[in-house]
Amino acid sequence: MGSAMDVGKKLVAMCSQGKFMEAMNELYADNIVSVEASAPPGKSARMEGIAAVRGKAEWWEKNHEVHSVKVEGPWPHGDRFIVRFTMEVTAKAGPMAGKRMKMDEMGLYTVKEGGLPHEWWALLGD
Amino acid sequence: MGSAMDVGKKLVAMCSQGKFMEAMNELYADNIVSVEASAPPGKSARMEGIAAVRGKAEWWEKNHEVHSVKVEGPWPHGDRFIVRFTMEVTAKAGPMAGKRMKMDEMGLYTVKEGGLPHEWWALLGD
Repeated sequence: MGSAMDVGKKLVAMCSQGKFMEAMNELYADNIVSVEASAPPGKSARMEGIAAVRGKAEWWEKNHEVHSVKVEGPWPHGDRFIVRFTMEVTAKAGPMAGKRMKMDEMGLYTVKEGGLPHEWWALLGD
Repeated sequence: MGSAMDVGKKLVAMCSQGKFMEAMNELYADNIVSVEASAPPGKSARMEGIAAVRGKAEWWEKNHEVHSVKVEGPWPHGDRFIVRFTMEVTAKAGPMAGKRMKMDEMGLYTVKEGGLPHEWWALLGD
């Protein structure tokens, strides 16, 4: 247990059921480093620590209506695995408010001692 | 030009047309390091240099009949991008000879000076 395959399967199973916060609570390391696909001008795409990462996720959940989620994977290799997230969401606030959008992202996760100390995100190019 | 997005799009366009060897010739660095998803017992998944990588690709092309290829991406971020390859193939030799198989792999590529010095592969978990 605790391999990239095991942890990846657990993450995919939980996220497929919409249990994003539960997956974070169970699998993310306290000192997780999260590198987002992009960041607003002047802001960093890099976050450190479970509090910051959880805060971002809570903000995201509050500000988006999620119409559909498709979670594929994991693609494991060594101590890392990739998961693909395809979502349809509508933003509730900000410049994209009211717009229905498709998101297609890859998450590259690193596994250590059965938990996740690092994630890195990439967005499908136009 | 030469960004992860540009190089990724070029790779996806060429591979979508089945031009795997041409993509290698045009985009791979001479000193490319390739880390395969898996290796036979006793063999290394890591290859160094364009000659070794091209040799492996030529062997693969000779020993597999390719029924379909789907190439998705790129998912770029910074100096890296991910591409997903979904294939149906039949092996012509070896223990899987005659068996039609589905392959679902992620390639994680690093871009430098418009070329590719590193690739890393992960296979969809069962």
